[in-house]
Amino acid sequence: METTLAVRGMTCGHCESSVKGALESIEGVEGVEVSLDTGKVNVIYDEATANIESMREAVEDQGYDVVV
Amino acid sequence: METTLAVRGMTCGHCESSVKGALESIEGVEGVEVSLDTGKVNVIYDEATANIESMREAVEDQGYDVVV
Repeated sequence: METTLAVRGMTCGHCESSVKGALESIEGVEGVEVSLDTGKVNVIYDEATANIESMREAVEDQGYDVVV
Repeated sequence: METTLAVRGMTCGHCESSVKGALESIEGVEGVEVSLDTGKVNVIYDEATANIESMREAVEDQGYDVVV
C-alpha cells in the first residue's frame, strides 16, 4: 500500500530525518521518501500492520503538522 | 571573553541544537546562546583555551556558514 502525507513545517535536512525516522520506526512501514521542497512524504506500508493514523501521530510527535 | 557569530542557514530547532552542541563541545567554551530569528550566536569563552577560528570551523562542520 502507498500513501502520500502532506507535512507542514519541515525546513531542513534535520527535519527530513526526524520525519523519516519516526515513520520508519512504525511497524509495517517499508519505505519513506520525503520531499522538503513540496512537504510531501511518500510512505509504502503493509496495511495489515500499519495505518495512516499512526503515521500522522508519529509525524505530529516530531512537531510537524500533517495537512490532509 | 564574549563574541557574537553571525550564522547563516539555521532554520529550525534542530539547527539551533546542532550549532549549540558543536560550540559547547569546544574546550574553553562556557556558554552559547542561539537566536534563530537573527542568526546571531553569542558565545562566552575562555580565550586562553578557545578561539574564534575553532568556533567557525565547528559551525561550518555542521553545514552552516559563518558570516563575519
